[in-house]
Amino acid sequence: MSFHSMWAELLPVGRSSASGGYRRFAWTDADADCRAWFEDQARARGLAHEVDRNGNQWAWLGDPAARDAVVTGSHLDSVPDGGAFDGPLGVVSAFAALDELRGRDARLTRPLAIVNFGDEEGARFGLACVGSRLTAGQLTRAQAHLLTDGEGVTLPRAMEAAGYDPDAIGPDPERLARIGAFVELHVEQGRALDLSGDRVGLASAIWPHGRWRFDFRGEANHAGTTRLADRHDPMLSYAETVLAARREAELAGAVATFGKVAVEPNGVNAVPSLVRGWLDSRAEDQTRLDTVVGGIEKAARSHADAHGIDLDVVRESFTPVVEFDHALRDELARILGTDTDLTVPVLGTGAGHDAGILSGSIPTAMLFVRNPTGVSHSPAESASEDDCVAGVLALADVLEGLACR
Amino acid sequence: MSFHSMWAELLPVGRSSASGGYRRFAWTDADADCRAWFEDQARARGLAHEVDRNGNQWAWLGDPAARDAVVTGSHLDSVPDGGAFDGPLGVVSAFAALDELRGRDARLTRPLAIVNFGDEEGARFGLACVGSRLTAGQLTRAQAHLLTDGEGVTLPRAMEAAGYDPDAIGPDPERLARIGAFVELHVEQGRALDLSGDRVGLASAIWPHGRWRFDFRGEANHAGTTRLADRHDPMLSYAETVLAARREAELAGAVATFGKVAVEPNGVNAVPSLVRGWLDSRAEDQTRLDTVVGGIEKAARSHADAHGIDLDVVRESFTPVVEFDHALRDELARILGTDTDLTVPVLGTGAGHDAGILSGSIPTAMLFVRNPTGVSHSPAESASEDDCVAGVLALADVLEGLACR
Repeated sequence: MSFHSMWAELLPVGRSSASGGYRRFAWTDADADCRAWFEDQARARGLAHEVDRNGNQWAWLGDPAARDAVVTGSHLDSVPDGGAFDGPLGVVSAFAALDELRGRDARLTRPLAIVNFGDEEGARFGLACVGSRLTAGQLTRAQAHLLTDGEGVTLPRAMEAAGYDPDAIGPDPERLARIGAFVELHVEQGRALDLSGDRVGLASAIWPHGRWRFDFRGEANHAGTTRLADRHDPMLSYAETVLAARREAELAGAVATFGKVAVEPNGVNAVPSLVRGWLDSRAEDQTRLDTVVGGIEKAARSHADAHGIDLDVVRESFTPVVEFDHALRDELARILGTDTDLTVPVLGTGAGHDAGILSGSIPTAMLFVRNPTGVSHSPAESASEDDCVAGVLALADVLEGLACR
Repeated sequence: MSFHSMWAELLPVGRSSASGGYRRFAWTDADADCRAWFEDQARARGLAHEVDRNGNQWAWLGDPAARDAVVTGSHLDSVPDGGAFDGPLGVVSAFAALDELRGRDARLTRPLAIVNFGDEEGARFGLACVGSRLTAGQLTRAQAHLLTDGEGVTLPRAMEAAGYDPDAIGPDPERLARIGAFVELHVEQGRALDLSGDRVGLASAIWPHGRWRFDFRGEANHAGTTRLADRHDPMLSYAETVLAARREAELAGAVATFGKVAVEPNGVNAVPSLVRGWLDSRAEDQTRLDTVVGGIEKAARSHADAHGIDLDVVRESFTPVVEFDHALRDELARILGTDTDLTVPVLGTGAGHDAGILSGSIPTAMLFVRNPTGVSHSPAESASEDDCVAGVLALADVLEGLACR
């Protein structure tokens, strides 16, 4: 089955006719349909299909118990109203690359597997990369059992309803010990390749990344009768801070976003008592990230102090920089280009991935395919068919270089 | 019963021990307790108590059917977590002023009534001044029957549950025809009296007032991977507009507030697709209000255009200036001061009142009592006991001047 046919088969699964976006959330019917599709693809190619203790799907060519396997793949779930490419491009390309290898009559010297990691986006239970985190021991069974979706359904109940055993989940070091390299192909979530004019790129690192909650507390008041000079309006400090975030991120070549806000009492005729804004910021390295967030906090505090607003800043989460394995990255660069004259650009990324989670346990690498819109987590994300084919060929080259040497 | 004792009796009714604020919403138990208190006060003074078709309470001294009555009073309900003064000060002062008149042995030549208007704040059903609007024919029975609270309870069901007949509500021109003047005493909701050093003031007008919805539509995107230059982030245009509103209002001596906001998808790691902000603006006259709102909209549009954001501005409600009756106001000024040398300042107000609603039907006037915090719709609103007593004496002077001439 060609890349084109596989893509067309998967395209309608879990698509909302209202938004045109995807709603493939973990352990739902749409997720089950994606998993059935994966199993069909594995069986059609004579690959050994298995589901691991954490619900991740594997399709094996060669002996799964042999060591030093080369693994590729990604995920099939989506964010709410996400696009078609984020995740599925890596899985479909993996099967297409295997077909390409077979067309080339390549002779494998290492086992090869294609993987579909479960619940990568965290759209349902609020935590990303649950399947790979469990496998790598970065999330315990007890922690996972506490995860609850928006309807109050816990992760174990959702797994059970989908026919999986929630008591089996947990670290899987034996599986990881069999893997020599994991290469994840992914649609680019920015426009670096579009700007450089390249179809395919290699990942250098996942930027350090944090979330900070800014609580601006002022004084609730009547919007019609309170003189401006007598107000302590936290919305003004919030607005200043939103603009400061953009300014500081621009200066540092980083990103900073206020995408979520909660207001009390949130009444049209009331000066708010509380404006709570969440900052997401990521930068190439820790120093730059510290500079950006420090600058934003300073601007927020200066405005808040001048207007009688109390400000609390709480770091809610933080992930340090994830450097992909240098040896593997250099090997991929060698395979795809030459030692001395790289033709494949190497880019950092602001997004988390299963390859990032697993990089603490095994050598991992990532290939990016050009996304001309640069848009991500939206139906507007895209990649041309030519670029997808270039991605498949690059992945086939990499697999051949790694597994047939 | 003294002002002090009446105040102390009413103080615990409907007070939240959690917030220290009041939750006296229309047709609730707290509202019923306030109404029972009103009826007790009327009966204790030998006043004829009646409830009109719209649930407003009246306490009559003299023949209600006689013409040219002088009416005073206010309301007993509250905004969510409101203060003790907004409304109740006018009702308690009315009873205390009547006691003062009797102490002076004043001989009434016109009927006198004290009123408690129902559902002034609109906290439960979202529309302010329901009792006076119905009476004045500014709200029809059919419109009122559509009002629904946050729990899905309609106004007619709520009235019925409280023991009132929702099918009886409607315009009450005969009642209004009996009234020669309505004088409402109210705690000031700003700091004009505090700044001028006066205990009591007279209202000139209620400022023109409107609400506008600003819909900023951009493009949902990944907060970690989308370059700043590729974003269409509506939060930035919203923030610029919040700051522009403050600037324009300051220039015009008006008020402008963004107190309510709704964001989609409102995710920490998502550049929003939509930020919807509500502007409340009020100014001394129509020209100034137009200047303020025009300036804000211009600033919003200029930023939105520069960042690829679609902007829709919708005027959701508008109330033109309400001038209180000039002859009645001049008469009150004469009574309280002298013809040529006013000692009572005359102030505009940004808040709506039952006296504003009724000003289209009958001569109305308002007295304000100093609020040193300037705070309103919050437990922090206040008035000193001395100032409250000064308000009672001023109201007694006014009633004596009007009803005993």
